[in-house]
Amino acid sequence: MPPWPSASGASRVASVAVLGAAGYAGAVAAALLHRHPELELRHVTARSDAGTRLDEIHPRTRVPLVLEEPATDLDVDAAVVAYPHGAAAPVVRELLERGIRVVDLSADFRLRSPEDYAEWYGEHGAPDLVGSAVYGLPELHREAIRGARLVANPGCYPTAAILALAPLAREGLLGDVVIDAKSGVSGAGREPSHGKHFVTVDETVTPYKVGGHRHTPEIEQELGGALRVTFTPHLVPLSYGELVSCYVSPRGEADFAGVMRDAYGAERWVEVVEGPPGMHEVRETNFCRISAHEDPRTGRMIVFATIDNLYKGTSSQAVQNLNLMFGLDESLGVPA
Amino acid sequence: MPPWPSASGASRVASVAVLGAAGYAGAVAAALLHRHPELELRHVTARSDAGTRLDEIHPRTRVPLVLEEPATDLDVDAAVVAYPHGAAAPVVRELLERGIRVVDLSADFRLRSPEDYAEWYGEHGAPDLVGSAVYGLPELHREAIRGARLVANPGCYPTAAILALAPLAREGLLGDVVIDAKSGVSGAGREPSHGKHFVTVDETVTPYKVGGHRHTPEIEQELGGALRVTFTPHLVPLSYGELVSCYVSPRGEADFAGVMRDAYGAERWVEVVEGPPGMHEVRETNFCRISAHEDPRTGRMIVFATIDNLYKGTSSQAVQNLNLMFGLDESLGVPA
Amino acid sequence: MPPWPSASGASRVASVAVLGAAGYAGAVAAALLHRHPELELRHVTARSDAGTRLDEIHPRTRVPLVLEEPATDLDVDAAVVAYPHGAAAPVVRELLERGIRVVDLSADFRLRSPEDYAEWYGEHGAPDLVGSAVYGLPELHREAIRGARLVANPGCYPTAAILALAPLAREGLLGDVVIDAKSGVSGAGREPSHGKHFVTVDETVTPYKVGGHRHTPEIEQELGGALRVTFTPHLVPLSYGELVSCYVSPRGEADFAGVMRDAYGAERWVEVVEGPPGMHEVRETNFCRISAHEDPRTGRMIVFATIDNLYKGTSSQAVQNLNLMFGLDESLGVPA
Amino acid sequence: MPPWPSASGASRVASVAVLGAAGYAGAVAAALLHRHPELELRHVTARSDAGTRLDEIHPRTRVPLVLEEPATDLDVDAAVVAYPHGAAAPVVRELLERGIRVVDLSADFRLRSPEDYAEWYGEHGAPDLVGSAVYGLPELHREAIRGARLVANPGCYPTAAILALAPLAREGLLGDVVIDAKSGVSGAGREPSHGKHFVTVDETVTPYKVGGHRHTPEIEQELGGALRVTFTPHLVPLSYGELVSCYVSPRGEADFAGVMRDAYGAERWVEVVEGPPGMHEVRETNFCRISAHEDPRTGRMIVFATIDNLYKGTSSQAVQNLNLMFGLDESLGVPA
Repeated sequence: MPPWPSASGASRVASVAVLGAAGYAGAVAAALLHRHPELELRHVTARSDAGTRLDEIHPRTRVPLVLEEPATDLDVDAAVVAYPHGAAAPVVRELLERGIRVVDLSADFRLRSPEDYAEWYGEHGAPDLVGSAVYGLPELHREAIRGARLVANPGCYPTAAILALAPLAREGLLGDVVIDAKSGVSGAGREPSHGKHFVTVDETVTPYKVGGHRHTPEIEQELGGALRVTFTPHLVPLSYGELVSCYVSPRGEADFAGVMRDAYGAERWVEVVEGPPGMHEVRETNFCRISAHEDPRTGRMIVFATIDNLYKGTSSQAVQNLNLMFGLDESLGVPA
Repeated sequence: MPPWPSASGASRVASVAVLGAAGYAGAVAAALLHRHPELELRHVTARSDAGTRLDEIHPRTRVPLVLEEPATDLDVDAAVVAYPHGAAAPVVRELLERGIRVVDLSADFRLRSPEDYAEWYGEHGAPDLVGSAVYGLPELHREAIRGARLVANPGCYPTAAILALAPLAREGLLGDVVIDAKSGVSGAGREPSHGKHFVTVDETVTPYKVGGHRHTPEIEQELGGALRVTFTPHLVPLSYGELVSCYVSPRGEADFAGVMRDAYGAERWVEVVEGPPGMHEVRETNFCRISAHEDPRTGRMIVFATIDNLYKGTSSQAVQNLNLMFGLDESLGVPA
Repeated sequence: MPPWPSASGASRVASVAVLGAAGYAGAVAAALLHRHPELELRHVTARSDAGTRLDEIHPRTRVPLVLEEPATDLDVDAAVVAYPHGAAAPVVRELLERGIRVVDLSADFRLRSPEDYAEWYGEHGAPDLVGSAVYGLPELHREAIRGARLVANPGCYPTAAILALAPLAREGLLGDVVIDAKSGVSGAGREPSHGKHFVTVDETVTPYKVGGHRHTPEIEQELGGALRVTFTPHLVPLSYGELVSCYVSPRGEADFAGVMRDAYGAERWVEVVEGPPGMHEVRETNFCRISAHEDPRTGRMIVFATIDNLYKGTSSQAVQNLNLMFGLDESLGVPA
Repeated sequence: MPPWPSASGASRVASVAVLGAAGYAGAVAAALLHRHPELELRHVTARSDAGTRLDEIHPRTRVPLVLEEPATDLDVDAAVVAYPHGAAAPVVRELLERGIRVVDLSADFRLRSPEDYAEWYGEHGAPDLVGSAVYGLPELHREAIRGARLVANPGCYPTAAILALAPLAREGLLGDVVIDAKSGVSGAGREPSHGKHFVTVDETVTPYKVGGHRHTPEIEQELGGALRVTFTPHLVPLSYGELVSCYVSPRGEADFAGVMRDAYGAERWVEVVEGPPGMHEVRETNFCRISAHEDPRTGRMIVFATIDNLYKGTSSQAVQNLNLMFGLDESLGVPA
């Protein structure tokens, strides 16, 4: 028996809702939770598509639930909030006040420093809650996540970049860091725009937010806070997947590959491999694949990490976090 | 009247051959030369496809010439040699001995240091000729190309990377340099392989030759020779085009964008633009598009350069070099 | 000397404007006309992007003209109108009333039957002009185009389908006809939508407007009018290019391949080839490539035709038409 | 307890091997069987890659088994044979003689008529076994599959085409039939070739085997045998997925959509939908999605069917067949 009362009264451990389920991240979260053996997906909501069945908008999910109007007075134990930053904070507050645990996919509770949030995103909608949020990267914060009522699910780029670099940061090995990231188009969301038009993206690679992407402070925070990194994302012509190529001037000498292997030897969802990893290998899974290399001419370290931006980069990681929050096996319902 | 006797006797300035015209680079060179107003394409050769019309193998070229068996006793003023490295050197020697000027697309005459060649490629087939070759990047070596009998056409990655960084190198502004490059699949050549199979390339990004790509010494040579750079190419799912993302820790302060604009203000084929450049903008042209940015958090410079790997990156640059070698307007027959 | 007064007074034969130049078709038309040796591109207009240079929106055009507010009192001899159907008709009327010749890229003047127009598009904005319009497929209506003041430029699918089937129609060989068409995404226009989002299009093929695409009556009209065809377009994950696969139950026997060769032997822009043609072979050119095959099991004819939907399918065909209208060599400024 | 002795002695119902597991189809079969709750994957073999772990060649499978040299004296209850046609027949014979049940992915046992096999494939290697093979399309031949020792797994195109048309054939509604098929590149296999090179496939659509694809007789056989269809496959630039667009001149009137719904109402893996189905909706699943439409102008029926060519089109269908052969729930280990 779970150590908390289940709103569902059903035989499952807990009931959940996905708010904002018409976007890519919300839809994947709903699809995973709909098939979860111990969590019951009870509600899916969407502002503009309310009244439509989720599997009509996203047939691949095969979730036959009807999208409801957004609401927070829901009879569930937990909610995944898939709202844009800024819009999430007030909704998260209402959910928490009703005793509903939250995994927030937005950036609203990822940065511990209110000044950083103000600089990158503007005024915060619920600054008093920031302190109680846990950064939801299980490989770094597993214990804190277990007890959390509010988990700030990491951004997709930070998930890959932090997993690639945290072991080196922990050992004090990180000098200068350049992160050149490549992402598929689903990372930019479902809303149509010129930048996501097939003809715009096809047959080219597009750097964007050069010198100013909002995932930068999140990466820096989790690598210790003091470091300043150059982070440059590029849009590439593919739908799902993300690769970060990290260039590190190491402080001191070490068996870098050994450091990586040691860090993740016990982690199911992080695979340290020899050759550069490929997006195919992690597609639609919760895996992050990492390889570490030395550039013999410059002594620089090169660390690659790849994830599926909608799975380990967002929604399967959210399920991983829910599992931890409800005392379940961390891998239940998480796709391998 | 041209200052040299034309082998053709025709009204055109000079006659040319393309050796190895069945590959991508050779085919594009042939297509451009076939339409050149002052150069007459007289022969195309190919080992395994001899006897076939070029436009049967590469219909888009619309070059109706029949591929001939490889030969060097050709009645032409100049030849473009599109052979693999190692195979090119002896052929180049024979051509030069017959008085035929050469633009060599291989790496055989790009490196001025025999030690570097030996380290990266193995034994050289014509070491005595290395000293007389000119590195065929017109924006850097225009005057030397004009008088050259042997031009070593730059590699595709080096063309983009050197154009991006040479102005900073000249001003002594280059500190640490990381070059993260993205290339379409045509850059890997026409020979079928698992790595170029559609299913392998589609929907992923693949780093390769990490810490050891042969274009590295070529880039370093043209940036002054002393600098050591980290150069990491990535294969991306598109056919034509290349983007280099260069990360530079600058030595000293400067108006970097101004340095770039000054360097290329008079160059027709290098466009310095504000936003990050895109491959579409240079596709099937001889243009290189460059933008320079500062990362405000780290002070690092980020310079992007994009080219079509088969045009400015190889074959239209070869035509640009031929124009210079024969005293023609540099842009004749070069696609804009 | 041309047989009409040039509005430009310049040495070129005529001056032109492109109305609606911010879309894909208008931009390509502008790019071609900007480089045309005898036509002077004097104005480009666009409603929502007025004030911006065309090469900022479409860098590849390299047309430095500033987009102007839409207008019809233009000092030009001719205009290419790249407006949506319905919106074009009133503008075309105004242009003609000012003595400006028009190539209209919309569907407004393609259908000679007002009833057909009403059925497929709704009420016509200038029904009195329909009779004076010439269907701008030069291979079928060259002489009429020469004298026309209003040319209705064909749709992209009809261009390919009619070129594939007209020779058989002319010989009375067409029985049942099924046209299965595949188009790149640029054919759907530049306006962002869910249907053109990269993630929607990538890695799938999407039939659309099944049994009811508006290009159907246009095809039927040009094949004689009495025939009813099944026409099914499919969106495929690529940017530019179109292939129609036409299945014909022939009436009677004939040397079908011979019929095709005879029909197009003298046509520069239609290439009859043996094997199935590919989009690469016509990309960014005015060519249509056609092959005819017999299915030995059923006796059915299979005719393939491929074009670049923005070139022969729209804008280079518009230039071909302008050349005819102004007594110029049909291929001037038309890309091969 | 299963009604047959298990070679494994383990608690699972049966043990299996995949012969030819280094190709795409074999690898997917191995991946599915490795995770099957009641079938134990005990051996994987591959001629040229023997000695390598399967997950090194196909990391996504995450099957850590080492590829063995091809053999037939295997301690298993069943084998999936993923060999080219011609090569499969003798191996299948040996397996059957050792009492090992077989699902053969090749074409060797699909055609019941030896004359048809001879015409399309050449001499048969085991003609005496043809009569005992069952065509492995469960929706048509479920009962026969249950008792079979040799199941001929259908080709990918036939799977989609037959599922689309069999209900109409059964009702005697099929008149003339044209099948225009579109397939991703994995359908052409893993062996590198010019035709599968990324640059060849990208940004084009390629009809192939026009009027003569070997899947034609297989489709005709399962639609009754007397009908002759025109079947034209096209290669499209995507990796996984297949769409058949079937054009039918119906014999007589009927509620076609109703016929389809009735035919598949009880079938878990065939989904009859309203709009044209998309490949995304079936990717990496055993689903076939079908829609039926009427062309109001011609009275023709248009039926679309889409599958993942490596799943319902090959390997998950093979697992579905194995389930039936071993008395298991048909959907065990089959991906939804």
